[in-house]
Amino acid sequence: MVQLYGDERIDFLLAEENMRIIQSPTVFAFSLDAVVLADFTYVPKTRGKILDLCTGNGVIPLFLSTRSQVPITGVEIQERLYDMAVRNIELNDLKDQLDVIHGDLKDMPARYGNNKFDLVTCNPPYFPTPKSDQKNINEHLAIARHEIHCTLEDVIQACSKLAKSGGKVSMVHRPERLVDIITLFRKHKIEPKRMRFVYPKEGKEANILLIEGTRDGKAGLDILPPLYALTESDEYTPELRKILYGG
Amino acid sequence: MVQLYGDERIDFLLAEENMRIIQSPTVFAFSLDAVVLADFTYVPKTRGKILDLCTGNGVIPLFLSTRSQVPITGVEIQERLYDMAVRNIELNDLKDQLDVIHGDLKDMPARYGNNKFDLVTCNPPYFPTPKSDQKNINEHLAIARHEIHCTLEDVIQACSKLAKSGGKVSMVHRPERLVDIITLFRKHKIEPKRMRFVYPKEGKEANILLIEGTRDGKAGLDILPPLYALTESDEYTPELRKILYGG
Repeated sequence: MVQLYGDERIDFLLAEENMRIIQSPTVFAFSLDAVVLADFTYVPKTRGKILDLCTGNGVIPLFLSTRSQVPITGVEIQERLYDMAVRNIELNDLKDQLDVIHGDLKDMPARYGNNKFDLVTCNPPYFPTPKSDQKNINEHLAIARHEIHCTLEDVIQACSKLAKSGGKVSMVHRPERLVDIITLFRKHKIEPKRMRFVYPKEGKEANILLIEGTRDGKAGLDILPPLYALTESDEYTPELRKILYGG
Repeated sequence: MVQLYGDERIDFLLAEENMRIIQSPTVFAFSLDAVVLADFTYVPKTRGKILDLCTGNGVIPLFLSTRSQVPITGVEIQERLYDMAVRNIELNDLKDQLDVIHGDLKDMPARYGNNKFDLVTCNPPYFPTPKSDQKNINEHLAIARHEIHCTLEDVIQACSKLAKSGGKVSMVHRPERLVDIITLFRKHKIEPKRMRFVYPKEGKEANILLIEGTRDGKAGLDILPPLYALTESDEYTPELRKILYGG
């Protein structure tokens, strides 16, 4: 039996019938962003290795383990979440494929040196650092959501240094940061190659951006078909249902 | 009666029942790109003025005249197309609102100086200059389609210089150039604010990019709902039909 703390609970990992995930509404619970990033990203299937920055409770490595045989390492700065990720790997008996590092993504390029990755994924904090009097009272959620320990450029620079030449960097973010992300990708030699927008429903503006680039890649971008989350009657669309629940 | 040359013909301007347009399959005929740009762009309604670069036979000024009362000027480098645009203005009795300049867009910033525009639109050449032995044998089409007289940066730099601070720049292009366009917009102080992708049909990748920025604007981008051109049975979608034929 795995240990649970506070308000932690064990949830199903949706489409993955045999997988379970420990999460907590007050500390970290995975969102649609992680699900659609795991679905969107390229993965090396049998050779190479994957790094997931800002891994939280390890949700993206768990999802990617169903699509790939290669080693996947998560990096998480918050000890409380790192510990949850460690227990999630145990809970799913994935210690042979997955591991997690308790550390700052900014320190990973020095740690790994020339030992670089075929894919770096990241679901980073979305929001600029709030003024201290407005900061989320819940420190765990604040760190996961706000650029407190790392700016967007810190994240992209780390991705760039950690990806092999020709390796992929996949990220989920908010569409309103698209211009910053594209500018920083190019600045750090990650050429955007694929983008997909997630729309809450038909007729609405996109609210999730998925973007994948190639380290030292050639220019040229594909805009994938849109993904709609909900139908007119506020049910999951067939496409999202398939991503969430399989089938 | 207006004069027609060679294989020129007079077509309906689609949704605009009272408007006609002179075009020619071998010299210049407007495309879906012009139609969706005219639909997508912001227009100042009653105050200010509009400039349309790479105006061709003047199709975008003709469309915009139905949405705006303000003066609209087209700029066209090819004399043959300039002449067609002049006759299109006459044909539609729009001389009080529209005019067209025979000139190079790169010379327009010097010509206009501080006399700047509320909106600059452009449907520029999409393709890098071909090697001379591959160049389109039809010079008119080659100039309209290839970056022979102006590069993408020439176009964006001209837009930037010609737009007022706070004025808009609207462009239609191919999605594969999105990264270049965004990078050049920012370099020339046009902040991308709205984007829309046109998809040939559901499940396909986007093939037209619509982008609008604000000169000296604040960061922050909206991704509008996608526009599909065709239904599964290869008919115009209701939304495109409405743009094309009104109603």
